[in-house]
Amino acid sequence: MFIKGNFVETKEIGSLNTITGYMELDDAGRVLGFLDGLPHGYEGTVLDYSHCLILQGFADVHLHAPQYPMMGMGMNLPLLDWLEQYTFPLEARYADNAYARKIYGQLACDLVENGTTSVVMFASIHREATLILMEELERVGITGFVGKVNMDRNGGVNYQETTEESMVETDEFVHQAAVFENIQPIITPRFTPCCTDRLMARLGEIAADHNLHIQSHISENDREIQWVSQLHPDCQQYWQTYAKYGLWNDKTVMAHCVYSDEAERKAMKEAGVLVAHCPDSNVNISSGIAPICDMLEEGLQVALGSDIAGGDQLSILKAMDSAMKSSKARALYCPGGVLDPAQAYYMGTSAAQSFFGRGKGFALGEPLHAVVIADSVWPNTETLSLAQRLERAIHRTTKQEIVAVFSNGRDVLPLTK
Amino acid sequence: MFIKGNFVETKEIGSLNTITGYMELDDAGRVLGFLDGLPHGYEGTVLDYSHCLILQGFADVHLHAPQYPMMGMGMNLPLLDWLEQYTFPLEARYADNAYARKIYGQLACDLVENGTTSVVMFASIHREATLILMEELERVGITGFVGKVNMDRNGGVNYQETTEESMVETDEFVHQAAVFENIQPIITPRFTPCCTDRLMARLGEIAADHNLHIQSHISENDREIQWVSQLHPDCQQYWQTYAKYGLWNDKTVMAHCVYSDEAERKAMKEAGVLVAHCPDSNVNISSGIAPICDMLEEGLQVALGSDIAGGDQLSILKAMDSAMKSSKARALYCPGGVLDPAQAYYMGTSAAQSFFGRGKGFALGEPLHAVVIADSVWPNTETLSLAQRLERAIHRTTKQEIVAVFSNGRDVLPLTK
Repeated sequence: MFIKGNFVETKEIGSLNTITGYMELDDAGRVLGFLDGLPHGYEGTVLDYSHCLILQGFADVHLHAPQYPMMGMGMNLPLLDWLEQYTFPLEARYADNAYARKIYGQLACDLVENGTTSVVMFASIHREATLILMEELERVGITGFVGKVNMDRNGGVNYQETTEESMVETDEFVHQAAVFENIQPIITPRFTPCCTDRLMARLGEIAADHNLHIQSHISENDREIQWVSQLHPDCQQYWQTYAKYGLWNDKTVMAHCVYSDEAERKAMKEAGVLVAHCPDSNVNISSGIAPICDMLEEGLQVALGSDIAGGDQLSILKAMDSAMKSSKARALYCPGGVLDPAQAYYMGTSAAQSFFGRGKGFALGEPLHAVVIADSVWPNTETLSLAQRLERAIHRTTKQEIVAVFSNGRDVLPLTK
Repeated sequence: MFIKGNFVETKEIGSLNTITGYMELDDAGRVLGFLDGLPHGYEGTVLDYSHCLILQGFADVHLHAPQYPMMGMGMNLPLLDWLEQYTFPLEARYADNAYARKIYGQLACDLVENGTTSVVMFASIHREATLILMEELERVGITGFVGKVNMDRNGGVNYQETTEESMVETDEFVHQAAVFENIQPIITPRFTPCCTDRLMARLGEIAADHNLHIQSHISENDREIQWVSQLHPDCQQYWQTYAKYGLWNDKTVMAHCVYSDEAERKAMKEAGVLVAHCPDSNVNISSGIAPICDMLEEGLQVALGSDIAGGDQLSILKAMDSAMKSSKARALYCPGGVLDPAQAYYMGTSAAQSFFGRGKGFALGEPLHAVVIADSVWPNTETLSLAQRLERAIHRTTKQEIVAVFSNGRDVLPLTK
């Protein structure tokens, strides 16, 4: 099979590779390569997107699935109040499997319609609802990681586990989640203030025993950081509260890193921890703006998270847009550079590909992840370079212009309609 | 006629008035009032939007119509380079009336589909194309002001007038524009660096002779401000370069005001100048973030502009969202408050109503301007207050959820389909 169109890929940050021509795929939807012209006799096997822009599938490496219904609300509260007043009461509702099925089904479709084909996701503390989320994602063709949240202290009313429960349920979750083909379990301590040392130690063991990935939050907000230092007087820095329990390695993604200083960033780089930058959330709940350009200069891997519902937009194109805007807002007040469209595009796609165990760009021999955008609906397209069309698409695309979404080798958009 | 639904209006900044019930309209679409229930016998005359949120029509008080095709591009250049490399060459194309007709027709529809019913707009230097823009806006039912741009110095290649041409063409424009019912001409010096003193003086006379409104730019960018002070050594502040020619009064709207200090803000308040805050543009081209909360505390009137194509989004709901985000970004680094949804909603609606000669809110006796949003497509709507639904709608609405748009008393959305 061939796809005809205008492809933009990024294999290293800041650099674009543009191809107008044909992509060849095998029967399993794996990318075989690019051709300028179609071989004789293959005319009937072409998907013609000549007028479209074809981007890599988007990766959302930090979002809270159960918070989907509260997207865009309570945005004038700081983090800890917002958790208590909005987040925890809503997450507690996922004890109800029917509610979980309904909301997670809607979320899964919304993700595909926005071009997100790979995710690293928090669910709630509920094992069954978390498995339902995995089912719904697998059903629509999304790939990646989902974690049952662990929290055995400082939770909400009706929204906390005992240490024992949290450990047993996590073991069971990891066991049951083995049935999925494209969605894997990930170890998910909510964040240090919500997990006792005993629980953290056990989570580190489970991760090591099963060779699992790990996700959590770090250095998002000043009150949170003070709290962590009170809880762990033995640790000089926040990251050490994860590292001492085996939760800090090259299978770890940490959300936010707004206040990660040079020492913490060095610890990330040395361990191979992936940064999940969440620009909308960090501004919405007045956390701060992470020094992303500094991180990139230091050689850290930085990917993007919508972080709904701290973030108010599910689209990773919007997260790219917001990452650029946030970097510009920061640069008005602090020394440092600003992100350009090529960097933002890399952060929303290839930056996370090794976390998912895949190659960068449209990797040869791997199943296609791609988003087809009908950007010719906008004026003057014929006069633009593909780099300009990418920039415009980042700023302007809504679901309306997304006409096909390939995940793991097949077009999954029809599944959501 | 009656409209059934959930109405949110704002008559003063920060304050919301919510009504679930029936709005009564006369045959001309003028608002007669609100009723809890329907009078007996009127069942056949109800537009039923029971499940929708009904907001006031949106006002965009600063945007550049000819820049519509370049929305979302060139966003990594500072203001003066961006003007020279992108903006002026594009604006020069509107010497071609056919091109103007095509682009302005698309823009007019896009505005309505986003719920914008009132505008204050820059066209280009071309009189004929400016009249075409007014025709296209009138055709789809948009109200407000459009200006032929004046620039007799520091323009682009093939994009500048002589002083004489600019004066004569403006006279002619004002004369010809009298034919429109709902769109009025507005005097539009591009900004001080682009207009000689002789031209500015004549524009002040034309404005006074015909009792016209005035729009321009002020204090957007540091290099621009330095330039203005070199051009006008007699003026201590930027605003005085407008004031000395009669272009600074209660019919004036000034875009940006990013670096307007207390003295300039006092001059605005005393003269009754309306501020057009353009949060997206100001961040996109790294101009700065205006101290909006200070302005509001000082009692200035601040409305919103999409400022395409410095801004990358046409929707005034997005401008409300960006105004809140920008205020939060600023507050991370400077003393000052942050905007809440009620304030942002006022800025995008009622703040500009006296500029348009209308009352605030859903003003009684005036033709209806309203946007009907099908927000029940999002989860849990039944559990939310109307204030929460407003906040969510600001963050989440795209064209897809806008199901009716009343401008000047009639539903104009079908005209664009």
